[in-house]
Amino acid sequence: MAKIIDLRSDTVTKPTLEMRAAMAAAEVGDDVYGEDPTVNLLERRAAAIFGREAALFVPTGTMGNQVAIRTLTQPGQEVIAESRAHILDYEMATTAVFSGCLIRAVPAEGGILTWKHIEPVISPYGGFRAATGLIEIENTANLAGGRVTRMELLEEIWEGARAHKLPTHLDGARIFNAAVALNVDVKTLTHGFDTVMFCLSKGLGAPVGSMLVGSAERIARARVFRKAMGGGMRQVGVLAAAGLIALEEGPKRLADDHANARLLAEALANTEGVSIDLPSVETNIVVFRLTAGRGAADLVARLKEHGVLAGAFGPDAIRLVTHRDVSRKDCIDAAEILAQEIAAGMKTASIA
Amino acid sequence: MAKIIDLRSDTVTKPTLEMRAAMAAAEVGDDVYGEDPTVNLLERRAAAIFGREAALFVPTGTMGNQVAIRTLTQPGQEVIAESRAHILDYEMATTAVFSGCLIRAVPAEGGILTWKHIEPVISPYGGFRAATGLIEIENTANLAGGRVTRMELLEEIWEGARAHKLPTHLDGARIFNAAVALNVDVKTLTHGFDTVMFCLSKGLGAPVGSMLVGSAERIARARVFRKAMGGGMRQVGVLAAAGLIALEEGPKRLADDHANARLLAEALANTEGVSIDLPSVETNIVVFRLTAGRGAADLVARLKEHGVLAGAFGPDAIRLVTHRDVSRKDCIDAAEILAQEIAAGMKTASIA
Amino acid sequence: MAKIIDLRSDTVTKPTLEMRAAMAAAEVGDDVYGEDPTVNLLERRAAAIFGREAALFVPTGTMGNQVAIRTLTQPGQEVIAESRAHILDYEMATTAVFSGCLIRAVPAEGGILTWKHIEPVISPYGGFRAATGLIEIENTANLAGGRVTRMELLEEIWEGARAHKLPTHLDGARIFNAAVALNVDVKTLTHGFDTVMFCLSKGLGAPVGSMLVGSAERIARARVFRKAMGGGMRQVGVLAAAGLIALEEGPKRLADDHANARLLAEALANTEGVSIDLPSVETNIVVFRLTAGRGAADLVARLKEHGVLAGAFGPDAIRLVTHRDVSRKDCIDAAEILAQEIAAGMKTASIA
Amino acid sequence: MAKIIDLRSDTVTKPTLEMRAAMAAAEVGDDVYGEDPTVNLLERRAAAIFGREAALFVPTGTMGNQVAIRTLTQPGQEVIAESRAHILDYEMATTAVFSGCLIRAVPAEGGILTWKHIEPVISPYGGFRAATGLIEIENTANLAGGRVTRMELLEEIWEGARAHKLPTHLDGARIFNAAVALNVDVKTLTHGFDTVMFCLSKGLGAPVGSMLVGSAERIARARVFRKAMGGGMRQVGVLAAAGLIALEEGPKRLADDHANARLLAEALANTEGVSIDLPSVETNIVVFRLTAGRGAADLVARLKEHGVLAGAFGPDAIRLVTHRDVSRKDCIDAAEILAQEIAAGMKTASIA
Repeated sequence: MAKIIDLRSDTVTKPTLEMRAAMAAAEVGDDVYGEDPTVNLLERRAAAIFGREAALFVPTGTMGNQVAIRTLTQPGQEVIAESRAHILDYEMATTAVFSGCLIRAVPAEGGILTWKHIEPVISPYGGFRAATGLIEIENTANLAGGRVTRMELLEEIWEGARAHKLPTHLDGARIFNAAVALNVDVKTLTHGFDTVMFCLSKGLGAPVGSMLVGSAERIARARVFRKAMGGGMRQVGVLAAAGLIALEEGPKRLADDHANARLLAEALANTEGVSIDLPSVETNIVVFRLTAGRGAADLVARLKEHGVLAGAFGPDAIRLVTHRDVSRKDCIDAAEILAQEIAAGMKTASIA
Repeated sequence: MAKIIDLRSDTVTKPTLEMRAAMAAAEVGDDVYGEDPTVNLLERRAAAIFGREAALFVPTGTMGNQVAIRTLTQPGQEVIAESRAHILDYEMATTAVFSGCLIRAVPAEGGILTWKHIEPVISPYGGFRAATGLIEIENTANLAGGRVTRMELLEEIWEGARAHKLPTHLDGARIFNAAVALNVDVKTLTHGFDTVMFCLSKGLGAPVGSMLVGSAERIARARVFRKAMGGGMRQVGVLAAAGLIALEEGPKRLADDHANARLLAEALANTEGVSIDLPSVETNIVVFRLTAGRGAADLVARLKEHGVLAGAFGPDAIRLVTHRDVSRKDCIDAAEILAQEIAAGMKTASIA
Repeated sequence: MAKIIDLRSDTVTKPTLEMRAAMAAAEVGDDVYGEDPTVNLLERRAAAIFGREAALFVPTGTMGNQVAIRTLTQPGQEVIAESRAHILDYEMATTAVFSGCLIRAVPAEGGILTWKHIEPVISPYGGFRAATGLIEIENTANLAGGRVTRMELLEEIWEGARAHKLPTHLDGARIFNAAVALNVDVKTLTHGFDTVMFCLSKGLGAPVGSMLVGSAERIARARVFRKAMGGGMRQVGVLAAAGLIALEEGPKRLADDHANARLLAEALANTEGVSIDLPSVETNIVVFRLTAGRGAADLVARLKEHGVLAGAFGPDAIRLVTHRDVSRKDCIDAAEILAQEIAAGMKTASIA
Repeated sequence: MAKIIDLRSDTVTKPTLEMRAAMAAAEVGDDVYGEDPTVNLLERRAAAIFGREAALFVPTGTMGNQVAIRTLTQPGQEVIAESRAHILDYEMATTAVFSGCLIRAVPAEGGILTWKHIEPVISPYGGFRAATGLIEIENTANLAGGRVTRMELLEEIWEGARAHKLPTHLDGARIFNAAVALNVDVKTLTHGFDTVMFCLSKGLGAPVGSMLVGSAERIARARVFRKAMGGGMRQVGVLAAAGLIALEEGPKRLADDHANARLLAEALANTEGVSIDLPSVETNIVVFRLTAGRGAADLVARLKEHGVLAGAFGPDAIRLVTHRDVSRKDCIDAAEILAQEIAAGMKTASIA
């Protein structure tokens, strides 16, 4: 088979030669003792970029989110999140297991939780109901198609949360995508959150790793919970070295990913048998539906035969994600193959 | 102040003289050793009435539900329930703390979860998402206004759950109310659930106590989890004695509670400033809204001055619950006071 | 069979006629709403007797202990306790499940934990080891044979704990037995603990119920955790009525239980084939060993045939517990049957 | 300052040039999708070396142990382990938080748990006590000074566990050290355990990573729990590449570490003011005590001034660990500095 165009997720990017060289040359130490200079440098840089006192390297976004939830909540509380939040759908119920919290899921159009959704479900401390312990926002909203929450909506949430003395956490796995889409720096875009998790992998391109940023006190406590989750690694500067390059260089090219996603979206909008909400394609994620109401798994299988990998979400929805390892040319090719296979699928369906 | 008409909840009923006499005369033993004859008799009777192998006395409905959830799930799973389920809203997130499960809340009209709501959110075991571990149904649906789920909807759920090899639990705190409303016996109405919790307190009138029924194997395991939750009491036959009367006599008079609720509902339907869905008043719970969109707390306060206790649910909703300790005469009086105070509230509002 | 002399545990006592009459006549309300006057009175009396701001009725000693542990600790901490502590041996690992804490068990002679045992195992907060969250003392020490911890040892522990800013909890299931043995009031004997759980059942003779006492703030939080554990009961004044009598009257007759235990112990000390440490019999519990190193289960079975119930602890140890429902005459009879059956057991063994 | 001789732990080793080159050249993929060829190769090799069906790469030994405990137990159970087990002392009570289990700690001489220690504390399933869920062995026993458990003792444990239908897990963080000391291969030395965790870091020298091996079914479940703990990394073949070298090459040089430890131990045995049990130094860990009963922290501080890093364990005990990054020459130097500073410490003490 020819080249694979892998549009399943931006998690699939492979480290660049520059990253590989940096990993090979990394100065390292025992990070459990706080002695890995490359990790320490990465943590300082992340804190600086986000305008925070401290940062913590974690092996995965899931660990970053779950350590943050544990740091900010108490067992027996509720975490308010949008109904398609990654912490609800893709983190294995660890919020219940490790933090003893339920997730109070609130459906919101486009996955964009606003203060209007949040305020009515806040539960005060008392003897009858679990109290709200945390408000969690995901920006961009992965499972809602990479939608972006704008500054003014965030400001409202931060203000409301402060008024209710509730902490806020950002699942910013793709916060740099949001920052690029909104043309605002990540520091401004996240300044009101108590903690922010962002991924060095995904769009930024590191092979492994995410960061949690926040106040010195909170990150110190998070470090203890990271150890408890089994995330206290040793000479992990080898990963941090790649992470540093991802952090410094990765954001620069996200606009290309967004343009490529738009290219795919526009091509799909012109394809018969496809339903797609063009304005919702704000970053590097494209979700479209087959108007036949089914056939997603079948289409994914046929795309794979032609070297295009995509993800089926339910019977009729397909997700495409652009990233560093798919070029504009790849996306043009993928758009063609998509059009051709969707058409073929319709023909088969109409015959059947 | 004159007589109090307490419509806040059917949990407020006081034990009858017959129950008090039974408690005083109860033959007891150490139930942790399985030696309390009155508890044993109550458990046998409950099992027989529900057509099950075994039953377990628990101090509260919350413990009954949570012990069942622990018995039927594994940490890291999801429990599917309606978005206003008691286990979600009023059980202190114990599903997370004690069972390590998240609740996958599904909004359904009237609180009536059907297989159509459930099937799309079932998650199979795998490496990316928490797997569904349990389907939980509440009948009647307390926070949705005591709505009743009909047999054919239950049959569909049981069949679907079996096909997916998923256990089902019934929060039947008020299952006898549902049985009366549907004119079907509780054994038939619950036969497809793996475990059923029902309350001896509430409509049946016992001072304390609920039961969990199911297979011998499951109830044996539930007994161990009851001990773990601190529910293994000693000479608790004194409570079981009242519970036996509640179980045998309580169901007979629930039709009166339903008629009284209907009386209240119909009076409210004729009251200006009130929005109420009459067909939704199927059992002993009446929920209505003030069309002004606010004023619930204020109305509850003024009703209290006139000896009528009610519960505010949000800014504009009020819940009334009928039970053994409010007579038809009480309800007629309460309806009058309600009409008068709602009118007074509207006048005040229009002046202001 | 003739009369049963049940020496298995002081949990087996049945409510007195006075208690039964009080239960039948109890003024009750909905305790979840804080409206049960009998429960409220019992809580005020318990608080007063222990010199504390507040008290909480709980259905079992296990729930009282576990609610206290949850109130005083954080998940990921360690609870220091003696190696035979009830919370370790007989509370179903609920400290792990509900509070997320490990128990750091320290073996101490006679079950009497002193500051010398505790200090070396205290772990400060940090990134490598779970921090100590709580020191738990059991007085009397049930599984060590009802041994009593003296005031001066407690004073040392309280002082040390304060110096380390560590909270302390007393499992005082039988604290009135300790108070009688030491001839000191329970208020003095427990004044340095943050929370104290004591049982109304066991020696005091109520059918069901224990109390947790402490500061108003801590008991308010404990009330929320009690709800989370399923311990928020409704018209539970029916139990509290018996509990009040147990609290006021029960302590007066514990000296008799202690004298009866001593009678049994002295008789056993004079029995061939028995090893017993007489000075260790300080309260109402007698533990003795068969010098043959085995035969406990067999002896228990033969005693049962003669109407004496006892408990086997391991291959060669037997526990006897005196209480209100065994008279001095019962104990004299039991001592005779014990002597006779131990002798018979030795004969059988020597023949075999 | 001159060269640092770091004897604090074998976790401090830095990756070799060969490892760095392998990391830079590693073929990688998305391991969450099971597509990282280097991780897959490492897992196959680990499984083969241990004679198991499957293996799982985890970022840390703590995660490996805790995932295994979760895989083999149920919440509410007890894990039997030696009283100085790493899972008890250095894993942040995660056994309680993540698995809901207590650790039943059993003191054993030299940290060597045998069936004689284990059998009496096994608790069967029932309504009064938490049941034993798992037996955990640590070989070598880190905190007991790297002591080795011999095959015949393990055989007894495996046989006993099978008879009680209890699973067994090996914390084999340093199992290759044990294998070298006993001159037996790791496959033989671990064959009776249900799961084995071993570290690629520590003596084997990889910068990051541990492995869990076991049956295909158990490792499949462990993979899900790894995701739940936040251990599902993406292009983690970069670490696996170093791990492969550690696995293939690392064991070969452990005998040198053992010889170096012996050199240090023998030097210490000849030093006044030192108490050391020479036969207990079986692998790469040396624990000694200052006969003065104190001064450990002070000695560690003075050693550090001379470039020797060691760890204080309590007031009078010091731990030294040999590894790849300390040569025989380093150990000779360290022994001299140790002798000199211990002597200086005694002089100061006798003056004071």
